[in-house]
This record gives sequence, C-alpha cells and structure tokens, in this order.
Amino acid sequence: MSVPVSLSAAERTEFEAFATGIANNARALSLPRFRRPVDVMVKRDMSPVTAVDRGVESMLRERIEMAWPAHGLLGEEYGATRVDAEFVWSIDPIDGTRSFISGWPLWGTLIALLRGGKPVLGVLDMPVLDERWVGHVGVGTTMNGVRCHTSACQALAEATLYTTTPDMFTPDEWARFDRTSQAAHARRFGGDCYSYGMLASGHIDAVIESNLMPYDYLAIAPVVEAAGGVMTDWEGQALGLQSGGRVVAAATPELHAAIIASLKD
Amino acid sequence: MSVPVSLSAAERTEFEAFATGIANNARALSLPRFRRPVDVMVKRDMSPVTAVDRGVESMLRERIEMAWPAHGLLGEEYGATRVDAEFVWSIDPIDGTRSFISGWPLWGTLIALLRGGKPVLGVLDMPVLDERWVGHVGVGTTMNGVRCHTSACQALAEATLYTTTPDMFTPDEWARFDRTSQAAHARRFGGDCYSYGMLASGHIDAVIESNLMPYDYLAIAPVVEAAGGVMTDWEGQALGLQSGGRVVAAATPELHAAIIASLKD
Repeated sequence: MSVPVSLSAAERTEFEAFATGIANNARALSLPRFRRPVDVMVKRDMSPVTAVDRGVESMLRERIEMAWPAHGLLGEEYGATRVDAEFVWSIDPIDGTRSFISGWPLWGTLIALLRGGKPVLGVLDMPVLDERWVGHVGVGTTMNGVRCHTSACQALAEATLYTTTPDMFTPDEWARFDRTSQAAHARRFGGDCYSYGMLASGHIDAVIESNLMPYDYLAIAPVVEAAGGVMTDWEGQALGLQSGGRVVAAATPELHAAIIASLKD
Repeated sequence: MSVPVSLSAAERTEFEAFATGIANNARALSLPRFRRPVDVMVKRDMSPVTAVDRGVESMLRERIEMAWPAHGLLGEEYGATRVDAEFVWSIDPIDGTRSFISGWPLWGTLIALLRGGKPVLGVLDMPVLDERWVGHVGVGTTMNGVRCHTSACQALAEATLYTTTPDMFTPDEWARFDRTSQAAHARRFGGDCYSYGMLASGHIDAVIESNLMPYDYLAIAPVVEAAGGVMTDWEGQALGLQSGGRVVAAATPELHAAIIASLKD
C-alpha cells in the first residue's frame, strides 16, 4: 500500500491548528528572552546555540510527542527519532541563532510536517515582526491568515535575489552563486529564513543558499511552493530528508530554470 | 568669533522636539506606502529611488525651511543649500531604498543637525519596527526614550561585526575588510542603518562600511558616539561634510583602534 503524500482537508485543518498552536507556545518562550542576557555555547560544527534554542525545542518535542506519539521527529538540537514513520515533524526552534544573539529581529521558528518523506505543511514564524507564513502543498500559502503569492518574475535579469551570507558557500559554490547573482537585477545579503517569507509574499524573486540543514528547508519548501514558487536543490531535485544543503527558491518555474542553468558547473 | 560645536540644554530640547516631530511626519508618509506597488527609477549612480523617497524628502525640506529659514540643508534626493551656515540639517528620507522596495523592514529615516560643520544631534528612525534612536553628542543616546549604551567589547576576536553587503567595497577595500572581519568573533551581512542602532544598544560590537554618503553617516555618528562608541573614517578621522564614504563604528575606543590598525594597507 502506498502512503499518500498529501493531506485531506480534515487533516490540513487539524495539523495546521496544532502547528500554529505550538508556534504560539514557541513565541511565548522565545520573545521574552530576546535582547536579554543569554549564555551562548558553541556546537561541534562551530555554530552557536543558546538555552533558548534548547528550551523551545524541548517544549516543541514534548508537545508533539504527547499529541502524536507514533509520529517521527527531527530537530536541530536533539536529533531524530522514527524518521521512517508515515508522518514526521521537523523543527528548528530558532532559525538565525546568530541574529537572535545579536538582537537582530530576523530570526524565526520553523515547523514542518512530512508525509511519506515529503514536506506537506510548513510554518515559518517571525516572532518579533509578528509575521507568520503557513504553506499547504497543493493548496496555498497564507501570511497572517491572508493568501499570498510569489511574484510573476520570469527573467534572472529582472530578479531581486537574496542570500544570507557569502560565508555559507564553498569557493566553488561562491563562484557559481556569484556568476548567477551578478546576472540578476539586484542581489542582497542577510535574512536567514525571512527571505523565503518575502519570496512567498512576492516582495523578492529568488533565494539561493547553501550549507542548510533539513530542519532549515523542510518547513520553507511548502511555504514557497504553495505560494506559486519552486524550491529544489541546486540540481533541480525535490527537497526531502536526504537532500544536501544547497537550495534554490524562485518565484516562477521559468526563473527557477534560469537559475538552475546558471548555477551549473 | 568661533562657533560653538555643541548645543545648550534649551537648544537640545527644542531641536530634538523638532527633529522627532518631523520623523513622525516622515513615518506617516512612508509607512502606508510600504509593500504597496511603487515606481522605481534609477539614478545616475545606478541606485534606485522611488516617489516615496522624494515625497518624504520634499516634506522634510519644507518643514525645515519653514521652521529654520537661515539653516543649511543637505538631502539625498535634492542636494545641498547653505551648507556654510552655522546650523545645517542633513536628511536621508529612506536609508535602504533597496530594502524598502523589496518589502524588507530594515529601512530607516535619518535626520542630523550639524553645528559648525560637526554633527551634534542624530535621529535614526525605523518606522516598521517602531524603534527610534536619538543621539546628542556629549550627552547620551536614547532608544524609544530609554538611555542606551554600546557594549564593553574591546577585542576584535570577541566582536560581532556587521556590514551591509560585500558589494559596497572596492577590491582593495574588500581585502582590508575581509582580513579584519575574519579576525572578528563573527561577521554578518545586511542591515543598512539598522546595524548602527544595534551597535548603540549594545547588541553588536562594530560596523565597517564603505561607499556611504554624508546623509548616511551624519545622523548615525551622534547616535553611536553619544552611546559610548567611536565612529570615524577608516583613517580614524572624525566624520564631517567632507569625509569620504568609508566608516568604522565600534563599541569602545579599544575595539575601534584595533579595527583601524587592522584595516591599514
């Protein structure tokens, strides 16, 4: 028996209510500790982590395991369990920890639900800005409850393109990104997960990044795709649990194809 | 007779009330047009400008000329008049026009008052975030009315350092910036004027930029310096109307000196 890779209307309602409910719980833990003294530890990969990341992830895991004991779970700080289950939740408690610890408001909480290994529901929540995107694959994306759409941009020469930092690329990747982004109308840096929300709402046209983890992109892909965009790896392959960390998100299939072609070795 | 280069307490009160009043007027014009369709034109230097930039600057100039007809005036869109006057206002209606037109919330309005060629009062206003810094040289800086201070960071190896984009540097400048920022604890991209507010509030430790215009840095220098920081050009010289566009802002004199030394050819 093959597993369906979409949600029924009843499942969409139930899972969205649950996911946005725990996103509210996450805000209640993270926002009061923003711009307050917090200890910063450094992980084995040299990325920073705080007690806020860990506290929010622990709470989210507990809520998910209480509500859906048979579901799998994948998180930034505490690893993976049951990732071969039909339903798997992926969570990043604070995407943009470096922003969080520099008082910078552009950090978010990412929550995804996968079915049969494919992300079907994504929540991209920006607590400081009070902006939340919810994407249902095949159905649509909303920002604060209002349907949103990617832009109509089809040509790289007309695209405004974002990436978080040149430091996320290897030298070879940078050469490919640099060539591609220099051909765009404009390129801008900074943003972490927020760039993808701006893409889903039609304000910017593309995001190209590297060195992401599954909990970074699994929640974002449904938000971008259900808003009308396309999001894949640099080879144009769909994103899943086993993807590498290189992603391209674009407002239209035409722009996406142009970027994939330009990024080729 | 030499011109005083500071303000009396009565002048501070009067000019701050005026400057924050016109910052409120600027918000009333710019905020309702954020994330709405707007025509973008390209200036001779290839930077973008919108009817919002021009409308806000026109309003600010009119308010200043009505209130202070003998004062000089310097603005991004409509040039300079009477810049040899004792008092000169410097305005940037939308700092971060590229952010404004990409729906990105990190754009600001910058208002400075110079006396005898030196900036003595600066307003850094972030309309979307509802955050406003006001700096009085020699007195102090407030954020939304509450006194703020730069961090105590003295060592480059412990500093979190920001810049808007690698694209603002010439190749030679990039080499000097890259060497310096690689020696920092962390470097991050994006932000335009907002980085300097984060510096004044002690959340980040340094900003290094290039290719700025006087209306970019004249409002920022009082905010940073009155909060306890140091802000100069890359040679360590005080900023004024005739400075080049290369600036270093740091939380402490020790960190500033370390950055200036590292940036040397």
